[in-house]
Amino acid sequence: MIALDWGTSSLRAYRLGTDGERLELRVLPWGIMQLPDAGNEENAGFEAAFEQACGDWLKAAPATPVIAAGMVGSRQGWREAPYLEVPLAVAQIGGSLTSLRNRHGQLIHIVPGLIENSQLPNVMRGEETQVVGVLSLNAQHDKVADILIGLPGTHSKWVQIHQTETQKEVRHFDTFMTGEVYAALCGHTILGRGMTAGDGNNNTSSSAQQDFERGLQVAQTPAGQAGVLSTIFSTRTLGLTGVLDGSGQREYLSGLLIGHEIAALRSMLHAQQRLPAQVMLVGEAGLCARYVQALRCYGFDRIEVAQQATERGLWQLALSAGLLPT
Amino acid sequence: MIALDWGTSSLRAYRLGTDGERLELRVLPWGIMQLPDAGNEENAGFEAAFEQACGDWLKAAPATPVIAAGMVGSRQGWREAPYLEVPLAVAQIGGSLTSLRNRHGQLIHIVPGLIENSQLPNVMRGEETQVVGVLSLNAQHDKVADILIGLPGTHSKWVQIHQTETQKEVRHFDTFMTGEVYAALCGHTILGRGMTAGDGNNNTSSSAQQDFERGLQVAQTPAGQAGVLSTIFSTRTLGLTGVLDGSGQREYLSGLLIGHEIAALRSMLHAQQRLPAQVMLVGEAGLCARYVQALRCYGFDRIEVAQQATERGLWQLALSAGLLPT
Repeated sequence: MIALDWGTSSLRAYRLGTDGERLELRVLPWGIMQLPDAGNEENAGFEAAFEQACGDWLKAAPATPVIAAGMVGSRQGWREAPYLEVPLAVAQIGGSLTSLRNRHGQLIHIVPGLIENSQLPNVMRGEETQVVGVLSLNAQHDKVADILIGLPGTHSKWVQIHQTETQKEVRHFDTFMTGEVYAALCGHTILGRGMTAGDGNNNTSSSAQQDFERGLQVAQTPAGQAGVLSTIFSTRTLGLTGVLDGSGQREYLSGLLIGHEIAALRSMLHAQQRLPAQVMLVGEAGLCARYVQALRCYGFDRIEVAQQATERGLWQLALSAGLLPT
Repeated sequence: MIALDWGTSSLRAYRLGTDGERLELRVLPWGIMQLPDAGNEENAGFEAAFEQACGDWLKAAPATPVIAAGMVGSRQGWREAPYLEVPLAVAQIGGSLTSLRNRHGQLIHIVPGLIENSQLPNVMRGEETQVVGVLSLNAQHDKVADILIGLPGTHSKWVQIHQTETQKEVRHFDTFMTGEVYAALCGHTILGRGMTAGDGNNNTSSSAQQDFERGLQVAQTPAGQAGVLSTIFSTRTLGLTGVLDGSGQREYLSGLLIGHEIAALRSMLHAQQRLPAQVMLVGEAGLCARYVQALRCYGFDRIEVAQQATERGLWQLALSAGLLPT
């Protein structure tokens, strides 16, 4: 099978073997917002990127099924794969793929995103596939407990999975723009002015750890009740008063934002009486380590970091869509 | 008297008459971070900016006292005027001016900023002068009630004034980076992508009012408990779902951030049992109008907008420093 993880800024193409094992991975810069220049024909950029990603694989084995997830299915993508509405059974996702044929007649199946039409609507595209992957990896664990799946990144998603004897359900999810807000604050506000770039070792040095930890704690102190619009200013004042140096300010702000995220998440789960039996994280290893520390700080336990969730998810979805021989 | 309001990005020079009335105002772009290019001599930029701002006034009347407030007294300023520590009696500020002589021997008095060395330290420079100005204007009001002075802007300050029969005290203050965060989110995150610039009338049109009001409410809904890192994402999803148009998203985000600020402020004041008898606002008129609406939404009443607080404050400080004939 060919599995494409096609987002805004990159395209990752996996060639998977008969048991879903990874045979090959290609990472291309052709995110849907930066496609190769391939002329004015409709979808020419998508066609060219697809060709580069897996044209030779398909030439060698034309019957290989192809599945794709991510922003490629958005309104700005190659073909819109309409959102499915939460709550929904996880098994529904694989039954709701949208298909298109490229100019060579090759069928490509696109995974839908999820939407939750609450007072403040929420959407995801790509993360639903990682959720499916995590749950397939998690098969050996408790089958009836509630699970919280965290996908930290530019926009963190926190997905509540309710499991019964007969099905797994996506019950609710939240988005936190923590990663993007952190970058905007460091790059485009006064908070960045006192910062110096950390060297590669900084985030494992003990003082960096302490500064990150100091930030993490803020949300659970009385001063933290002022909320993140107020507490972030302490990044600067702790610099002015000599408590934090330039790279410490960077670590502190990272901890402070993640701490506010996890504190808010915890208090919502508590209010909803939905504290999970287990937390599963998916994401870049260094970032997951920060979130593990934050989750522990705010009283979560049984935390695991899942690997290869995207390719496992695409494999699982293709299986349940009947694209693969069972 | 000559009164200078000398900040990071501009220099405002007031010529005041014998009763403190404004005779003339000059606004120059010579903030302390963008001084005129005047050679390499120490403080040459400050000297040149000062000369342009009021050199002719001093030539005509060399004995005129000069007082300045704002970032000109910071470590990056012309002469550092060390912070005074909060809590403190308001009357102390005028007794703690720092002086320097310029190259023509003219004496210039600089107002100190305030610092609060709590767990998350807080600082201000310039706003202490506006606080003094507001309180001098407020002389005809209750003399024993607690007052909250709000200074919305790039960084909003909220200053708690405790009044007794004998003195007025700055008891505590908070900073919210609401204005700067709003600009960073609009200019440097995905939230800005769906936005269109409002035309001049938009923020008074009824739909803009509704969108702003919708944002204001968020912090006091159950979904608002997720905190601002999460709720801001609804700016985008309410655009995706067709609820908000491009300029509506801008209004909504403004309301959402200000609402989170005022909700947090209200709950802190409530927890401290320090809800004020009166709120006084100082700032740009359009922004103050937004904050008046937000304060009403969160249950504050007796709100007044103060005028000319900076020049009144500088006058009052010069009086109490003995720079003026009484």
